[in-house]
Amino acid sequence: MRSVYVIGIGITSFTRLEYPLSEIAAYPAMMAMKDAGRKEIDHLYVANMGSGRVNHQTGLASAVVDTLSLTPAGAEAIENGPASGASAIKTGYMAVASGVHDVVMVTGAERMREVNNLEATEFVATLTHPLAEYIYGVTLPSLAAMFTRLYMEKYGVTERHLAMVAVKNQNNALKNEFAHLQQEISIEGILDSPEAMTNNPYVAEPLRFFDCCPVSDGGACVILASEEVARKVERPLVRLAGVGQATDTHAVHEREEPTDLLAVRRAAAKSFEMAGLAPSDVDVAELHDAFTILEIVESEEVGFFPKGEGHLALERGETAIGGTLPINPSGGLKGRGHPVGATGIAQAHEIVHQLRGDAGERQVKDAKVGFTCNFGGFGNNVVCLTFVRGN
Amino acid sequence: MRSVYVIGIGITSFTRLEYPLSEIAAYPAMMAMKDAGRKEIDHLYVANMGSGRVNHQTGLASAVVDTLSLTPAGAEAIENGPASGASAIKTGYMAVASGVHDVVMVTGAERMREVNNLEATEFVATLTHPLAEYIYGVTLPSLAAMFTRLYMEKYGVTERHLAMVAVKNQNNALKNEFAHLQQEISIEGILDSPEAMTNNPYVAEPLRFFDCCPVSDGGACVILASEEVARKVERPLVRLAGVGQATDTHAVHEREEPTDLLAVRRAAAKSFEMAGLAPSDVDVAELHDAFTILEIVESEEVGFFPKGEGHLALERGETAIGGTLPINPSGGLKGRGHPVGATGIAQAHEIVHQLRGDAGERQVKDAKVGFTCNFGGFGNNVVCLTFVRGN
Repeated sequence: MRSVYVIGIGITSFTRLEYPLSEIAAYPAMMAMKDAGRKEIDHLYVANMGSGRVNHQTGLASAVVDTLSLTPAGAEAIENGPASGASAIKTGYMAVASGVHDVVMVTGAERMREVNNLEATEFVATLTHPLAEYIYGVTLPSLAAMFTRLYMEKYGVTERHLAMVAVKNQNNALKNEFAHLQQEISIEGILDSPEAMTNNPYVAEPLRFFDCCPVSDGGACVILASEEVARKVERPLVRLAGVGQATDTHAVHEREEPTDLLAVRRAAAKSFEMAGLAPSDVDVAELHDAFTILEIVESEEVGFFPKGEGHLALERGETAIGGTLPINPSGGLKGRGHPVGATGIAQAHEIVHQLRGDAGERQVKDAKVGFTCNFGGFGNNVVCLTFVRGN
Repeated sequence: MRSVYVIGIGITSFTRLEYPLSEIAAYPAMMAMKDAGRKEIDHLYVANMGSGRVNHQTGLASAVVDTLSLTPAGAEAIENGPASGASAIKTGYMAVASGVHDVVMVTGAERMREVNNLEATEFVATLTHPLAEYIYGVTLPSLAAMFTRLYMEKYGVTERHLAMVAVKNQNNALKNEFAHLQQEISIEGILDSPEAMTNNPYVAEPLRFFDCCPVSDGGACVILASEEVARKVERPLVRLAGVGQATDTHAVHEREEPTDLLAVRRAAAKSFEMAGLAPSDVDVAELHDAFTILEIVESEEVGFFPKGEGHLALERGETAIGGTLPINPSGGLKGRGHPVGATGIAQAHEIVHQLRGDAGERQVKDAKVGFTCNFGGFGNNVVCLTFVRGN
């Protein structure tokens, strides 16, 4: 199995974009080609969740490969709900590792502006179990809210802990010019002030408005390549050292212990095992904080902190930039935004910046090992990636 | 790069099915596990085009992996329009060839019964260029009709040749219990009789009703594995020896010579090159006859016959079962049906039967090398696979 490196990265602003979906996918791809100093691409994967439903477009990968003038290179779209991005990176990894292709572009995009927030919530709910969840009106916020309530009861997490994640990540986003939310917030403003219930109302109790990531348009791209190609690119070497994936029951209520996210635990363990590393080796991580509770729980399940103690590490400031293990320096889904198909790739994009040492104001000092967790469904299909600086 | 084998196959009837989409994907998967005598699967790919739009479901792969009780195995959906099936097989090939996984299930499914024929045509049209084709009302039948007219003028193909493809394939389907169309037809009945214009009216001139494949529900599955695993399975060895893919301009009118299907030509050449074989080595082929004209043109572009002479080989009976190179003994898309995401996998399913020598009444005598062409968009993204009996 050949080693696989990231040789180029690109991203759009995560915001409301006017461009057609295929151009939202193509723009970061062009940035990534420029970054890599290379226009020859053997194969393209496009990560996307909603084109068929939201944008009335199929064959998106064929559209993007043509937009980029990469024909006759092959192309496919990869869909794994909100984890489509990391799934596409995993697929690209195999394409290079196998020797079938030398240089593979993985671009992700979503254009959600066709739908308003209510429709977006309904659309995302199509990833729940069609017969056991969806038809009863379950949505992702309502599932996350029930999960949060259980977590609070079992482990002592409070609304204040959730707000601490929101404040940390949204304020990290101020240091990321591509992030969707560019508004400084404080615990005082969203929790303690008399106006908090107006500024930050419950969406699905105990989750409030500022506990939920925004609905964004956007795209992100990484280019993966063999070692031979990577050594010719004038960028610091960043190796994709571990890819791990695991699934869990499709319906959340079928899980023996619903506060355990077994797919996160297993995907992370596989990723670390492949990389020959441990959670304690990680210098910087991007976790899937579609809801603030998820950052806390994932930080435990991937092995950074003991189960039930993620909120304590957060309290101690360990996960802030400057802490012992900064989580979501990019702003995360909460601050950067969540254009679904692009998210897993945006996580990798941030890690590559961090490992190259060019993350600017949000740089984690001397980061050598980076980690991402991309969370599909409500934890039913999770992909974790481990990146290493150098060889 | 490790060798990759097909160790199990399964298929549903291609017809109108009552089951939920995830079960249409799961049923052939269970047949394939039974066929392989193996329940341990490392990873699942689901080929599907329409779940988001037609079935209002996303995260289909997570649903199927759970339906099959294969958790915690990873899973993704692969979309490449009508070539989703072969794209998913190519992806599975890389997963095994790379050594990331040993046993990969590739199942494809489509449930079109949610939409009537007009809506299905509109849905499939979403794979055309959104700004250069779709918004002007282009459909796949209308594109194929314009293409056919040019081909007739340039190469002397007639409506009679098209009808000969329809008759051959639909009558082959009578020998396939899983095929959608189970009605014998004749040139007399669909072309020469006084009732022909009533029985077989123009859909998009010069293409008639019997020149177009039916809209079907259905699923098909293959299980791919490493040589070490394959040698333990009590089935004749069938190796996936070549995977080739190529794209062409997304908008058909941008092609220098619109009667050339360059993506077919290139994908086939790559597939043969990887397999170390030539078109003349092929004993049996499944080509993508969504419209009858396509079988003729693909039989030329993949290298079986000189350009412009496919219809002459057809006339001579070379492509019939018993001919020198039988094409679509299963009935093809025309006779077997075209549940979009399942089609490329159904083609592989047929080739595996043929190479195992258990294709029953439609068996091609002593078939050693089989070939499939799965055609995405209107020739904008094509995947060709070459299979070999034994090592």
